[in-house]
Amino acid sequence: MWRLPLREDDEAADGEGIGRILALSDGVFAIAITLLILEIAVPATTSDAGLPKALLTLWPRYLAYVLSFVVIARFWVIHRLAFRLIARDDEALLWLNLLLLMFVAFLPFPTAVLGQHPGSPVAAVLYAISVILASLASAACWWYASGRGGLLRPEAGRAQVRALRARSLSGPVLLTLSLPIAIFAPYAAEIVWIFVFPLTRIVFAWFVAGEREEPR
Amino acid sequence: MWRLPLREDDEAADGEGIGRILALSDGVFAIAITLLILEIAVPATTSDAGLPKALLTLWPRYLAYVLSFVVIARFWVIHRLAFRLIARDDEALLWLNLLLLMFVAFLPFPTAVLGQHPGSPVAAVLYAISVILASLASAACWWYASGRGGLLRPEAGRAQVRALRARSLSGPVLLTLSLPIAIFAPYAAEIVWIFVFPLTRIVFAWFVAGEREEPR
Amino acid sequence: MWRLPLREDDEAADGEGIGRILALSDGVFAIAITLLILEIAVPATTSDAGLPKALLTLWPRYLAYVLSFVVIARFWVIHRLAFRLIARDDEALLWLNLLLLMFVAFLPFPTAVLGQHPGSPVAAVLYAISVILASLASAACWWYASGRGGLLRPEAGRAQVRALRARSLSGPVLLTLSLPIAIFAPYAAEIVWIFVFPLTRIVFAWFVAGEREEPR
Amino acid sequence: MWRLPLREDDEAADGEGIGRILALSDGVFAIAITLLILEIAVPATTSDAGLPKALLTLWPRYLAYVLSFVVIARFWVIHRLAFRLIARDDEALLWLNLLLLMFVAFLPFPTAVLGQHPGSPVAAVLYAISVILASLASAACWWYASGRGGLLRPEAGRAQVRALRARSLSGPVLLTLSLPIAIFAPYAAEIVWIFVFPLTRIVFAWFVAGEREEPR
Repeated sequence: MWRLPLREDDEAADGEGIGRILALSDGVFAIAITLLILEIAVPATTSDAGLPKALLTLWPRYLAYVLSFVVIARFWVIHRLAFRLIARDDEALLWLNLLLLMFVAFLPFPTAVLGQHPGSPVAAVLYAISVILASLASAACWWYASGRGGLLRPEAGRAQVRALRARSLSGPVLLTLSLPIAIFAPYAAEIVWIFVFPLTRIVFAWFVAGEREEPR
Repeated sequence: MWRLPLREDDEAADGEGIGRILALSDGVFAIAITLLILEIAVPATTSDAGLPKALLTLWPRYLAYVLSFVVIARFWVIHRLAFRLIARDDEALLWLNLLLLMFVAFLPFPTAVLGQHPGSPVAAVLYAISVILASLASAACWWYASGRGGLLRPEAGRAQVRALRARSLSGPVLLTLSLPIAIFAPYAAEIVWIFVFPLTRIVFAWFVAGEREEPR
Repeated sequence: MWRLPLREDDEAADGEGIGRILALSDGVFAIAITLLILEIAVPATTSDAGLPKALLTLWPRYLAYVLSFVVIARFWVIHRLAFRLIARDDEALLWLNLLLLMFVAFLPFPTAVLGQHPGSPVAAVLYAISVILASLASAACWWYASGRGGLLRPEAGRAQVRALRARSLSGPVLLTLSLPIAIFAPYAAEIVWIFVFPLTRIVFAWFVAGEREEPR
Repeated sequence: MWRLPLREDDEAADGEGIGRILALSDGVFAIAITLLILEIAVPATTSDAGLPKALLTLWPRYLAYVLSFVVIARFWVIHRLAFRLIARDDEALLWLNLLLLMFVAFLPFPTAVLGQHPGSPVAAVLYAISVILASLASAACWWYASGRGGLLRPEAGRAQVRALRARSLSGPVLLTLSLPIAIFAPYAAEIVWIFVFPLTRIVFAWFVAGEREEPR
């Protein structure tokens, strides 16, 4: 009952089907990443003389802007790597991808809270949980497509598949490990998070290196 | 007079024509779904100490966010299923699709009202009516394209066409039936609506099953 | 000096060049049309009991929403008809198209003013002038591409070219003629404008009919 | 370590890879350019009688709107010229492009400050610095892709490559030279900036002319 009758046709019209998933996804990523700037504003009552101070006071928002830009960009980069290896979709992948987009589109809210409440552990934990949920949805997309779903292109190498699996889990794992930092040193957590994602790339490169021997 | 002289060329340049309809539609779906988050905000005056309570108080907005994300995503899923079977457009389909987009782009407003007035029957009924109007426009697109318009691909199976017709009507019918719930138990209505759309899929699968025998 | 050295390559890589113009244009149209809803909001202080009245009081904003949705959709429909006949771009067309997008992206502002100041001749005239400017930019794109620019596909029929020229001018002409209505009966003007565009289609159809005889 | 194992496959699936970079970029450009209008609003308390004056008082915001529209459009035009010559991507180009998008998506903020604080040197300098950062990121994309990255199409002429390098640097150079104007005559700076970009085109045309002789 899970697989719809339309399924057969889905396979026939592959490219097209994936095409609109990518169009909607790129749209949501682009909008979420661009809406972040709406959270940064100088109070309407600021005088010209008070402008320099008002601009400097906004620094926690600039930091939150850069952090969320990097975080959302990273989700997009992984989305692109993963969907490059995905040949077709089914209804489960469609909804897992929509779940990812729901969490990505949610991120401007915890970003705003973090920018308005710098140094608040509550804001930092809210942010971390939001990113962890998005990371789990991102990982679920890839594990389903490359596992039970069987939706990959035939030319996708086993090493690539495993590397992306490791990479997709390293995000939520590292973020969960960072929760104590968020609680005890919220500012430090923001800096850590900006660099967590480069870290996941190293883990990822390491896994791939280990898989290199295998014949494809 | 209804069919424009440009019509003939429309048929020649099919893919392209449908292409821009899909580009505009995916754009509107992506933006409508991402703007929803702008309705969720912590009051600017909230202190760090008051933050946890302020975040919890927002729960009706989180619920409205999830509801509208699922609702708009569902319109997109059906749009994609339907337009996969549509080969070309004419001016009537163009404007029916724009009508659908007008109602989809309207949804962030009733969503905001629902999030700000949880438990208000008026907010719930406004929301229901907005979704019903969008559902009717969605159904009109498909009934026109598959009926009088004659715009389908030759390979579209009769079972598929009928199944999508049933599915497109099950939405507005179930939503209309839910209006009493919206009036007497607004919260319950939100929960019901999140699950109405999976229900329409079951109705849809049932219709298709009944049509299976037919030769294509 | 006007035509850049890159021009030659532009011709080689046609589809691609037009492709990104259409991507940016569809993006701007989709966002402008979806941002309109942000102008409609119930005052935060509205009580549940006051909600029905607050919702009804917003009717001038609903009207302005529908008007601007129809107006922007119409610009998109004409853009799509015109660019379907355009084979390649040059720098002049690129900037004329950006000028059109600048006026289209501006429309949410006069729409908001019209929604907030219903019945104000100033608001209605501001709106009319904004749409006239967008119409002139739209017409300039098409007259340049089909005239001096020489950018059309070889298969574009003369009748089609003339018909779109007439249609592109009928918009600004009818809107200019409607300025007295905007001044003396602002509400009536909004209703007229919603129907101006169907009128331009009739003018357009009439022109095409007269051109039918000609050999292509 | 810098080049990922996925690199080989990137080359295989070129078009597709570049395709999503362009989709995300066009999305961010389109949204940034359209969000600018949200900074223009008439105070909610304006009476109908006070409307003409309120609309005229907004002129610094109209000027900032036109300026930022031209600036962002110009970044898009150069992005399109450059990526037309780029055949494939690697992870460095991906992130340089995201850096460019981060600065482009940031521009609505200094635009708003400039519109609210007309004639303030601080606002003008903030604006200039933001555009310089975006220009440098734009130049970095092109210098990397055409230099160390070696990502160009084989048919890209040397003259074109050098011309775009000159053009990509002329932006930040002219903007830096304009900083004194921003400090001593903020309004004049806005007018200058609107015309800086046509100037860069002339520098660019001059460079190309000098390169014409060379065999490709």
